Amino acid sequence: MRVNGIPYRSIWLDDDCWSVNIIDQTFLPHEFVIRSLKSMQEVAEAISTMRVRGAPLIGATAAYGVALAMRESADTGSLAAACAQLLETRPTAVNLRWALDRLKAALEPLPPEERCSVAYLMARDICDEDVDINNRIGEFGLRLIRGLWEQRRYDADVLHILTHCNAGWIATVDWGTALAPIYKAHDTGIPVHVWVDETRPRNQGAALTAWELQAHGVPHDVIVDNAGGHLMQHGLVDLCLTGTDRTARNGDVCNKIGTYLKALAAHDNDLPFYVCLPSPTIDWAMADGVAGIPIEERDAAEVTRVRGKTAGGEMATVQITPDGVRARNFAFDVTPARLLTGLITERGICPASEAGLESLFPEHGAGAT
Amino acid sequence: MRVNGIPYRSIWLDDDCWSVNIIDQTFLPHEFVIRSLKSMQEVAEAISTMRVRGAPLIGATAAYGVALAMRESADTGSLAAACAQLLETRPTAVNLRWALDRLKAALEPLPPEERCSVAYLMARDICDEDVDINNRIGEFGLRLIRGLWEQRRYDADVLHILTHCNAGWIATVDWGTALAPIYKAHDTGIPVHVWVDETRPRNQGAALTAWELQAHGVPHDVIVDNAGGHLMQHGLVDLCLTGTDRTARNGDVCNKIGTYLKALAAHDNDLPFYVCLPSPTIDWAMADGVAGIPIEERDAAEVTRVRGKTAGGEMATVQITPDGVRARNFAFDVTPARLLTGLITERGICPASEAGLESLFPEHGAGAT
Repeated sequence: MRVNGIPYRSIWLDDDCWSVNIIDQTFLPHEFVIRSLKSMQEVAEAISTMRVRGAPLIGATAAYGVALAMRESADTGSLAAACAQLLETRPTAVNLRWALDRLKAALEPLPPEERCSVAYLMARDICDEDVDINNRIGEFGLRLIRGLWEQRRYDADVLHILTHCNAGWIATVDWGTALAPIYKAHDTGIPVHVWVDETRPRNQGAALTAWELQAHGVPHDVIVDNAGGHLMQHGLVDLCLTGTDRTARNGDVCNKIGTYLKALAAHDNDLPFYVCLPSPTIDWAMADGVAGIPIEERDAAEVTRVRGKTAGGEMATVQITPDGVRARNFAFDVTPARLLTGLITERGICPASEAGLESLFPEHGAGAT
Repeated sequence: MRVNGIPYRSIWLDDDCWSVNIIDQTFLPHEFVIRSLKSMQEVAEAISTMRVRGAPLIGATAAYGVALAMRESADTGSLAAACAQLLETRPTAVNLRWALDRLKAALEPLPPEERCSVAYLMARDICDEDVDINNRIGEFGLRLIRGLWEQRRYDADVLHILTHCNAGWIATVDWGTALAPIYKAHDTGIPVHVWVDETRPRNQGAALTAWELQAHGVPHDVIVDNAGGHLMQHGLVDLCLTGTDRTARNGDVCNKIGTYLKALAAHDNDLPFYVCLPSPTIDWAMADGVAGIPIEERDAAEVTRVRGKTAGGEMATVQITPDGVRARNFAFDVTPARLLTGLITERGICPASEAGLESLFPEHGAGAT
């Protein structure tokens, strides 16, 4: 997508053809900073500190991390060590494991001298595939939005879509997952308006989704995470769209903390709630998401402190709690499949269930070998 | 309750016997600032800028505002003007109207020279009644907590209670509403632990509830508003307790934005959700809370900016959104009575319904004259 009129992806090779450029998302929305990663360690740091985030982009970045590791040392021990270290950077994103497993399986049988160049090619393929997948998700989501617009329930002039966290183009390589249908709807002239959940504690909605939508010109309002229920209760939401970090085989969706609360509100108000997911976020080995997906717990300081721009234009962090307070910081929750209207994948829309997913991905079905 | 070992109420007369002292809550939790209000205008400013907040305390403060107005001019026009101006300070708190109507009705028939002293006496009575009411709510809530502790479902060592916003002693004259049972349970040796919802946008949980609980020594953890659903889903909550700003005749509860989402999660996980309410917060004229209660919309800057303490100890406000972003700020939502387990009042606990409320307050029943 475009930033100041210039088309960007969220990750690309530098002019030297080996350094990996990213948009450092910890500076957004106040500064647009490009950072050049030159080692696997820098990639691991960028993922764990969330300079890059979003399940699809994490997978793509980790793939380049393997390539950078192979550039330094391509022996089998280095390959295993790189994959192990990168896998530890974020425990939830299933794309991370998917990308690393894919590279490891392909590189291990190769002679070491071929591993580096193949890793770069595979990382590029993972990026291109992600863009293609998100483009398809956008097209299927656009059909859904067009249908809702034609039979609009509430506002005659605008279709209101609520989203949580950032599942936009900077959470992927391009297009985004939950925002892809919104961009396409906006571009085809459907008058969408987006309610942007702030998404505490890291404010990915207030900072990143608002920045993306503003840059692309999509009408939106930022709201606190507490507000969505009220909006849904009063006919101010037509559709909820989110992404997911990990989807279980049974259709349970692990996504940013608070997604479950919004799905409950949508269900209570008989509103459609769809999750947009590239198939690499499906964890086919996870039978029951609510019971089985471990929830990453992050630093309590993300809860007690907020970072932003002062009136003087400096970046500053302020503490909102009393000194010495205790806090807990659960990063994700799992929304039970029963609360979801459907899943939007690159192969179409299906019910959030094992049967639904298998209907689109029969190669992963119980009968598949 | 105590601050640094000294017992306080949240509002009291200064040594001069006419100025009204408050704890300026806009400085909490970082500074404990007492402010002396010397005119009705200062009272109105203190309520509208939320130096004092919480439905019961707003009512008590407004009553002293009338007394201060009568001190300047006690004619009937001044009385009407003072009540009208004070009523406009916050649109949601039904206690505000209740206190002002009560003073106006009592003062109007009096000769002007008696109005000031009677207003001060009535304001003091309103404060004393609030303390008595909250003490009773605390006792009824304590019985409920003791019952849950004896039959504890989850953790054998701790009873986990989730609360939203601040319904503690500084939201009232003393004790608090939702926190009164918690203080009493803690004081009687029941090992309670409180999950404190941050309560964006004004962070009353992170700032005020955490400060109160810390000062009193009640174990607690601050969490983002997004986290409650996950906690309830995983057996980490035994009970939800909140206050209310306005309760409709049918048991629908208007409270801080986000309460509805927590009630949905409690309902989905079969957990008890009780609302603590002094009867002055019941709006007997409001038949249907969800349909009828207007929702106060506040300045969008409360959403886009966060105030707190910098590492250097200065207070600062930081902007978390891109420059020029649009935001909306709905201050309350209405939780339908069907999601509530019960209402804890100064006369006991009842179902959240018209019949439930009338069983405790028959003088307001359909058959009452």
